[in-house]
Amino acid sequence: MSLDKKIKKSQSEWMKGKGPMGDVVISTRLRLARNLADFPFPGRAEPGDLKEVRNRVEKVLEKLNYGLKILDLKEIPQLERKTLVERHLMSMNHAEDGPEKVLAVDEFEMISIMINEEDHMRIQVLFPGMQLEDGLRLINEIDDAIEEELVIAFNEKFGYLTSCPTNVGTGLRASVMVHLPGLKLAGRLGQTLQLISRLGMVVRGMYGEGSESQGDIFQISNQVTLGASEGETVENMVGIISKVVEQERQARQYLLKNREDEIRDQVQRAYGLLSHAYRMNTEEALGLLSDLKLGIELDLIKEVEPSILSQLMVLIRPAMLQRIMGQELESGLRDVKRAELIRKKLSGGESHVR
Amino acid sequence: MSLDKKIKKSQSEWMKGKGPMGDVVISTRLRLARNLADFPFPGRAEPGDLKEVRNRVEKVLEKLNYGLKILDLKEIPQLERKTLVERHLMSMNHAEDGPEKVLAVDEFEMISIMINEEDHMRIQVLFPGMQLEDGLRLINEIDDAIEEELVIAFNEKFGYLTSCPTNVGTGLRASVMVHLPGLKLAGRLGQTLQLISRLGMVVRGMYGEGSESQGDIFQISNQVTLGASEGETVENMVGIISKVVEQERQARQYLLKNREDEIRDQVQRAYGLLSHAYRMNTEEALGLLSDLKLGIELDLIKEVEPSILSQLMVLIRPAMLQRIMGQELESGLRDVKRAELIRKKLSGGESHVR
Repeated sequence: MSLDKKIKKSQSEWMKGKGPMGDVVISTRLRLARNLADFPFPGRAEPGDLKEVRNRVEKVLEKLNYGLKILDLKEIPQLERKTLVERHLMSMNHAEDGPEKVLAVDEFEMISIMINEEDHMRIQVLFPGMQLEDGLRLINEIDDAIEEELVIAFNEKFGYLTSCPTNVGTGLRASVMVHLPGLKLAGRLGQTLQLISRLGMVVRGMYGEGSESQGDIFQISNQVTLGASEGETVENMVGIISKVVEQERQARQYLLKNREDEIRDQVQRAYGLLSHAYRMNTEEALGLLSDLKLGIELDLIKEVEPSILSQLMVLIRPAMLQRIMGQELESGLRDVKRAELIRKKLSGGESHVR
Repeated sequence: MSLDKKIKKSQSEWMKGKGPMGDVVISTRLRLARNLADFPFPGRAEPGDLKEVRNRVEKVLEKLNYGLKILDLKEIPQLERKTLVERHLMSMNHAEDGPEKVLAVDEFEMISIMINEEDHMRIQVLFPGMQLEDGLRLINEIDDAIEEELVIAFNEKFGYLTSCPTNVGTGLRASVMVHLPGLKLAGRLGQTLQLISRLGMVVRGMYGEGSESQGDIFQISNQVTLGASEGETVENMVGIISKVVEQERQARQYLLKNREDEIRDQVQRAYGLLSHAYRMNTEEALGLLSDLKLGIELDLIKEVEPSILSQLMVLIRPAMLQRIMGQELESGLRDVKRAELIRKKLSGGESHVR
């Protein structure tokens, strides 16, 4: 298979398009934590229980009309599992060896369901851009279909019961990935992030808890799962994210108006380095991709597709890179192959600034 | 006139081609200091004397068959005079206002003769690459032709008499401009430059005395004009320069063998920045052009012409830049126009690393 084809095959649907508010919002993710009523939670369950949970859930999933493919993680090599994490289809935790772990995923990689992670089920939907409401509709639809077939652990007072108390209630975690280079360059990032926190949201890096922010990309998600309905949670987030998007857009226009030469130089240099460097580590690549994407959104760079950041921020990850290149690579060689992949992606269009 | 045409028109012949040892040697320059026997040296001459000198020399130059165009510097604007300095056709000193100053130059900008600089005549020839012997032949031919017509200040014991005692004797200053990025990267530059000095040569920056080295470019010239003939001086320099060229080539091969990834990355990044940046100062441009040229000579970059360094190191100078762009530019705008000029030059060929 050619490199081009391998790259294409490695892209989830959400990376390719630009969704609503796609100038700032990269993707929207929602997940529900659910457990079967008649079995102990995975942390305390016997292998026999987990097997039974798995069988029951798989049977239900097969009946659903989402074209879910069921992957027994035991049969999937470690490197391949890591690519699933890098594509945000499952958690790092789920990639570790453990009994009866399963991932169900549709061909567009829009829906993914983990079986026997921290909870019996973690149902996830993933969309490009800002699509919290559509996301909630879809995930509710999936949840309803599952609950028609299985008895779910639910308490009238607390709501859905989960392994970790932070998920009890709705079991919903909604996350929006935003790209905030304008606020950073304008020196206003700190104050925006503080505001978000004060409004009850959590701000993290690209890969959730414990991951650092790279490439000016932040994941904003709800803190609270108790005391508010799914609808209220999402509605609240829509308001906050819209505000963040507005601030980022204002910062970009401010930069364009007051520091145009500097910004133009920075984004064009990023483009030049990305399209020419012979080796590059992930951190540098993400920083430059962030600049490039800013240039695209400000219309300073016209010949690169806006989804370049969504695509490459995943494709250049160590496991994805090795999968695309079809070989295991030690770290030094990875930097060379990463740069090659980026050059390849960027040479698709006419890539010159004149 | 289009920018392309203006760039073409601004190039001297020596910038376009790659001369002998052109992988290391950028250009060869020789000059003779000569004075008329019957007039005081310019520093002590009356305006009437200088006028008479000028008339006599001009009359002779008009008779020579080199197609020399005679420029009265009084009639040439300051900015245009600076471009003549930047193209190495005359000294900074000669660009300053002063009585009866003249520059004679041929259409290829290979021969230039200053009248009433520090000496009555400064005869110069300029070639691409390493051409000390051919240069000496040509400059001797010009000198002989002039001496057939004019009585030159000459003393049997000392040789040619000049304003400054450092030129007495042959009046010959031979300079070779070399590009030594390999020695610098390999950490061997200091020891090579020391060796050159010990062998009686002077090492300076691109614009001679008082100019700093930029872009790993050094001008090597003879120190001594007394006690050795022109032929011996040149022969001696040929030996030394050949040795420097040899060392630089070895350093480059060493780098290619032992640090290929690093060098490849560095030269490709230089290419990316030069072909994409929106603004760039002279110092950065020369540093990156030095890297780019190294890449071309090591065959790591194939689509850029090797003369890019010779051309751009002159074209991006402040006065040349303003001449090409057809407008006076303050320093900030100059950086923008400089980057534009460089991008333009580099977009001539297919400029992508794939």
